[in-house]
Amino acid sequence: MRARKPEPQLEEIPAAECWELLSRHNVGRIAIVVDGKPQIFPVNYGLKGKVIVFRTAAGAKLAHAPESPIAFEVDEYDASAGAGWSVMVQGTGRDVTEAADDFSWTARGARVHPAAPGDKLHMIAVNPTLISGRRFGPRNGSPRGNS
Amino acid sequence: MRARKPEPQLEEIPAAECWELLSRHNVGRIAIVVDGKPQIFPVNYGLKGKVIVFRTAAGAKLAHAPESPIAFEVDEYDASAGAGWSVMVQGTGRDVTEAADDFSWTARGARVHPAAPGDKLHMIAVNPTLISGRRFGPRNGSPRGNS
Repeated sequence: MRARKPEPQLEEIPAAECWELLSRHNVGRIAIVVDGKPQIFPVNYGLKGKVIVFRTAAGAKLAHAPESPIAFEVDEYDASAGAGWSVMVQGTGRDVTEAADDFSWTARGARVHPAAPGDKLHMIAVNPTLISGRRFGPRNGSPRGNS
Repeated sequence: MRARKPEPQLEEIPAAECWELLSRHNVGRIAIVVDGKPQIFPVNYGLKGKVIVFRTAAGAKLAHAPESPIAFEVDEYDASAGAGWSVMVQGTGRDVTEAADDFSWTARGARVHPAAPGDKLHMIAVNPTLISGRRFGPRNGSPRGNS
């Protein structure tokens, strides 16, 4: 009585493949917590190894991301194919604009090109503690279960 | 010495237009706070008036969205046009799956069609307290400053 197509399955994306997906995109979203309440902002990002870096001006992200728990997410959904995926990174924000430690030096090597206008003089990095991803639907022309 | 194109301007989107944008889309992201740390999840959503509704199964969203501060975001970026926008709603999550109050009745009228597989028996609504949006770049073929 239901639709004829087999129901697509939701599957976990292995961590290595999550990083690969992040390396092929450049628009994601950052979630921060302000006074106990979450906020979400789109960002252009770059990757340097397993560090996610975005640029920002003064504002909520600069005030509340550094030294705080933050989340970063990228997703894609193709309605015509009935396929989608998302990757979430949880970690701690770091202001790497000027700091001289190794982490900041490395993070500043990420190539980040903000699309939105305005001077974004600060570089914030996500020091990751957890990465997870999920996908569903056909991919690469192969049916389900071919992962 | 800089690029020849005039720099696009970032502008606020009026609230009424933010709601209009949300009404024309159906994929967004929810941010919740779990043990003080933010998490982001993509969702298919529906609107009923100014209430955003999504479906979910048991899991982090069901455990941490109801009666808690949450954020909802939709964005779009057209790299070839150099244009983008985002809308964020901040509010409180409500489990409207079965509750008999007016808010829940109304929210259950939203049409929500999850693309991801799996039974999503619970309906969560975002009771909005704040909506904000930003955009940049040309739109409708008109140059900047024509808002």
